[in-house]
Amino acid sequence: MTEERYVVGVDFGTLSGRAVVVAVSDGAELGSAVHPYAHAVVDDRLPATGARLAPEWALQVPDDYRDVLRHAVPEAVRAAGVDPADVIGIATDFTACTMVPTTTDGTPLCELEEYADRPHAYVKLWKHHAAQSQADRINRLAEQRGESWLPRYGGLISSEWEFAKGLQLFEEDRDLYDRMDHWVEAADWIVWQLCGRYVRNACTAGYKGILQDGSYPSVDFLEELAPGFGGFVAEKVDHGLDGETGQLGAPAGTLTAEAADWTGLPEGIAVAVGNVDAHVTAPAAQAVESGQMVAIMGTSTCHVMNGDVLREVPGMCGVVDGGIVAGRWGYEAGQSGVGDIFGWFVDTAVPPAYHQAAQAAGESLHEHLTRLAAEQAVGEHGLVALDWHSGNRSVLVDHELSGLVVGQTLATRPEDTYRALLEATAFGTRVIIETFNDSGVPVRELVIAGGLAKNDLLMQIYADVTRLPLSIIDSEQGPALGSAIHAAVAAGAYPDVPTAAKSMGKVRRAVHLPDEERAQSYDELFGLYLELHDHFGRATRLMRRLKGIRRASILGDRAEDAR
Amino acid sequence: MTEERYVVGVDFGTLSGRAVVVAVSDGAELGSAVHPYAHAVVDDRLPATGARLAPEWALQVPDDYRDVLRHAVPEAVRAAGVDPADVIGIATDFTACTMVPTTTDGTPLCELEEYADRPHAYVKLWKHHAAQSQADRINRLAEQRGESWLPRYGGLISSEWEFAKGLQLFEEDRDLYDRMDHWVEAADWIVWQLCGRYVRNACTAGYKGILQDGSYPSVDFLEELAPGFGGFVAEKVDHGLDGETGQLGAPAGTLTAEAADWTGLPEGIAVAVGNVDAHVTAPAAQAVESGQMVAIMGTSTCHVMNGDVLREVPGMCGVVDGGIVAGRWGYEAGQSGVGDIFGWFVDTAVPPAYHQAAQAAGESLHEHLTRLAAEQAVGEHGLVALDWHSGNRSVLVDHELSGLVVGQTLATRPEDTYRALLEATAFGTRVIIETFNDSGVPVRELVIAGGLAKNDLLMQIYADVTRLPLSIIDSEQGPALGSAIHAAVAAGAYPDVPTAAKSMGKVRRAVHLPDEERAQSYDELFGLYLELHDHFGRATRLMRRLKGIRRASILGDRAEDAR
Repeated sequence: MTEERYVVGVDFGTLSGRAVVVAVSDGAELGSAVHPYAHAVVDDRLPATGARLAPEWALQVPDDYRDVLRHAVPEAVRAAGVDPADVIGIATDFTACTMVPTTTDGTPLCELEEYADRPHAYVKLWKHHAAQSQADRINRLAEQRGESWLPRYGGLISSEWEFAKGLQLFEEDRDLYDRMDHWVEAADWIVWQLCGRYVRNACTAGYKGILQDGSYPSVDFLEELAPGFGGFVAEKVDHGLDGETGQLGAPAGTLTAEAADWTGLPEGIAVAVGNVDAHVTAPAAQAVESGQMVAIMGTSTCHVMNGDVLREVPGMCGVVDGGIVAGRWGYEAGQSGVGDIFGWFVDTAVPPAYHQAAQAAGESLHEHLTRLAAEQAVGEHGLVALDWHSGNRSVLVDHELSGLVVGQTLATRPEDTYRALLEATAFGTRVIIETFNDSGVPVRELVIAGGLAKNDLLMQIYADVTRLPLSIIDSEQGPALGSAIHAAVAAGAYPDVPTAAKSMGKVRRAVHLPDEERAQSYDELFGLYLELHDHFGRATRLMRRLKGIRRASILGDRAEDAR
Repeated sequence: MTEERYVVGVDFGTLSGRAVVVAVSDGAELGSAVHPYAHAVVDDRLPATGARLAPEWALQVPDDYRDVLRHAVPEAVRAAGVDPADVIGIATDFTACTMVPTTTDGTPLCELEEYADRPHAYVKLWKHHAAQSQADRINRLAEQRGESWLPRYGGLISSEWEFAKGLQLFEEDRDLYDRMDHWVEAADWIVWQLCGRYVRNACTAGYKGILQDGSYPSVDFLEELAPGFGGFVAEKVDHGLDGETGQLGAPAGTLTAEAADWTGLPEGIAVAVGNVDAHVTAPAAQAVESGQMVAIMGTSTCHVMNGDVLREVPGMCGVVDGGIVAGRWGYEAGQSGVGDIFGWFVDTAVPPAYHQAAQAAGESLHEHLTRLAAEQAVGEHGLVALDWHSGNRSVLVDHELSGLVVGQTLATRPEDTYRALLEATAFGTRVIIETFNDSGVPVRELVIAGGLAKNDLLMQIYADVTRLPLSIIDSEQGPALGSAIHAAVAAGAYPDVPTAAKSMGKVRRAVHLPDEERAQSYDELFGLYLELHDHFGRATRLMRRLKGIRRASILGDRAEDAR
């Protein structure tokens, strides 16, 4: 009889980190703990000086991440009631693209006293959106020059990614840029803290760092982008690494004495290569085969799927060799707004009588509207909506798009519009799936993770609209479980991630099956959605002009106020 | 010194009648009284039998109208404190097209005992919408045959009008149809009750009765429409009249002893030819010259305007010789939904915090949203809406159209959408005005009557959007005042309605003037509205398909329930 061994997965989110202790044999989640970041998201004033940050900035303080190792990991081990000596590995996943500027030994520049008052010395969180003009220039030039990497990102790279954020640093604080030795993904920085080695993971290097076929954007390209920026790759991104990346599930090194002290785990256990929260959820949901699309549905939705072949899918976020699982092509797509659209509707567009009825029934307003919406047949509300309140990521990649509802009459009720918004996000998912299908990367199964998986009506709508069987991850902490799986592989308990996922991942298969009659009704509504999608997304610039008018109006207003 | 004389105007609305006593010299409104109809709108069960009516039916009981003469008129005289002997005339206006089937002497068929249980024996109120299939057939055949009268109605006649309602009676209760001697507009029936003479007024005969250039639709046309219906004009509509109509402002006769007894007014005073509530408002607002468009803005908006020339304006409700003022071409257009769209939004789409804030500020929710909406600059909300929640009357004449809002983001607030809906109705008015301008019937001034005139923000938006000076009627009871003006003319106190309107009508001129800067901003938004208008109103059938899907879905649901 073998003695059970354990691994620790740590999921670094936007506001806190969560550690979970998992049994290596079957993935049983034995204990977990959450530790919030003391500084949360720094988007108003710099903590060290109180100085105001510009709009669109979003920073973090890196020692908050170490605090998760110091507190959440030992707490989770205590909660699990396991002997720390039986823990054989640790792995982490992170938000991305979240960037740390460091010295040669990995010290964040903000931890050097002389730079504590410099905003650019801090961690730039994924949702730091102040590098849009840099991203625009990168995209324009890449398109002009026909850079081969551009189609790997559906034709556009994001302002959130390594090169846009790096160029902003170069242009806005040259002194600090010159002082920086490494421009490090937080996903890799935390691993560096654990094992003392800097290993760049294949996932973020590919999706966020524009590493394709072993190459980064050329010196030539970068120098044309901004004179002096030509050395960015050699001197900052790839400095000391020679293009090497660590494959997901491989060990990056072993736990240092210092990190063992923080975590209470044994020195020398395996530390896995870093990972990203969305991507690591795929093995947690046993969805690592080609054609198994994982949709992590929360305020927004991220779609990840492995494929056997490399295809250029229009409007995807990216395709990366080994980006989800080593040895396979990892595809990523996304919907900018999903749960946050439902939340916005519930917060701003539901009258008092519904609040009272929900309260009387002991339901949340979401539950109440969902129950009312579930009573109607497909198409009964007479509405179609576009789910673009936060723009459209895939497949249109256009953040100047906006929301739309059509079909309202004086008989339209809140539950009608609510249901139309649920359906709009399902139609948005179907557009993504059909684009993958049409590009030669067929989707066979939809696996749902994230908080919205609990809404049965929403799930049934997704099954009916996509005509796919819907599986649901069977864990409340998908990313942390996914990290634990990587820890087990890095520790040698399994030969590879797919094998480990089979034993440790958890999914309820085909929980929601498409109903053919409803699916046919939805085909008709989806046809109308597609008509609106193509009209407003491609044929007319009306939504873009509306945003332009809005910006000009607000600027004019401010100028007026200033006079 | 001349002694003051008085006239009485009586406005028959949908739920009640209002009498007002007015000084002949200056139009001063000295006293008024309202009397509600005992049976209100009969749209559920027939009072005599309790039998259920079919959907879309809307009947009234004619003696309820006489009750207004019996109660509201004497009360108004008492309230005015004038001597009834100084009253020299009475005039009435009515909802239209509201139809009464009568015997030779004007007795409504429902007042004959043997017909009291027959729904078709009652008054068909303007909003009786159960003759849509008859209207569709009339329109199809008229278009096929190229009937010359069709363009006078913008290309379509309505299910509300005399011929559609008459054909429904013919097809659904032939026995009653055969018994009927006259098919009478309530506007004329009430005059018949007052003076004992049946005079068909030029306004409803033209707008609702398809009387154009002295002719009705031909026997040939009617016989092809429905065999046996060929005699409809000669035997029912025009029976005993030989194509004669009474001009507006002319006397129809004098007050009978019986009506003098009801009203307390002197026997033998002038009774004016009947009129319609919207049209009679034009002289009340001193807006009888060519180019003065009167918009009566309530739940919906009716536009009436005189023109010197006959033009075919696409999508207008109608153009009638002497339809508003004798001797001029009267044009009518309309917007199906205005105030009722704002009401629907306030009732169904505003969250509790706004209700509380309105209450705390001592405002209605409309006032609260209006105040918040007024704080923003043009275009700041980033939205455009289509005001088609009840379909579009002018200029698209399509009740399969529906509402639309585009531009919503997670930052969109209730006051933003509210303002966008206000603006949408202003854009709708601008489309109508531009269509008149483009058709050679230029609009120079916009004169607002009706309940919405009180909303200053809405009025300013209309001025800015249309670039027209906005005048506002200076009376709370425009139609009744307009009737009083007609009474004064019928009594010979003035030579004609325009002259009487100059002394007795009341308007505040140019209360809201367009602001050129805002007007320019609105030009841009109006461009986007027009793009949506033409796309959804003309280029695509998407809204029509949505309504079809909705109908099929509800029918399928009912079939499901029945199984």
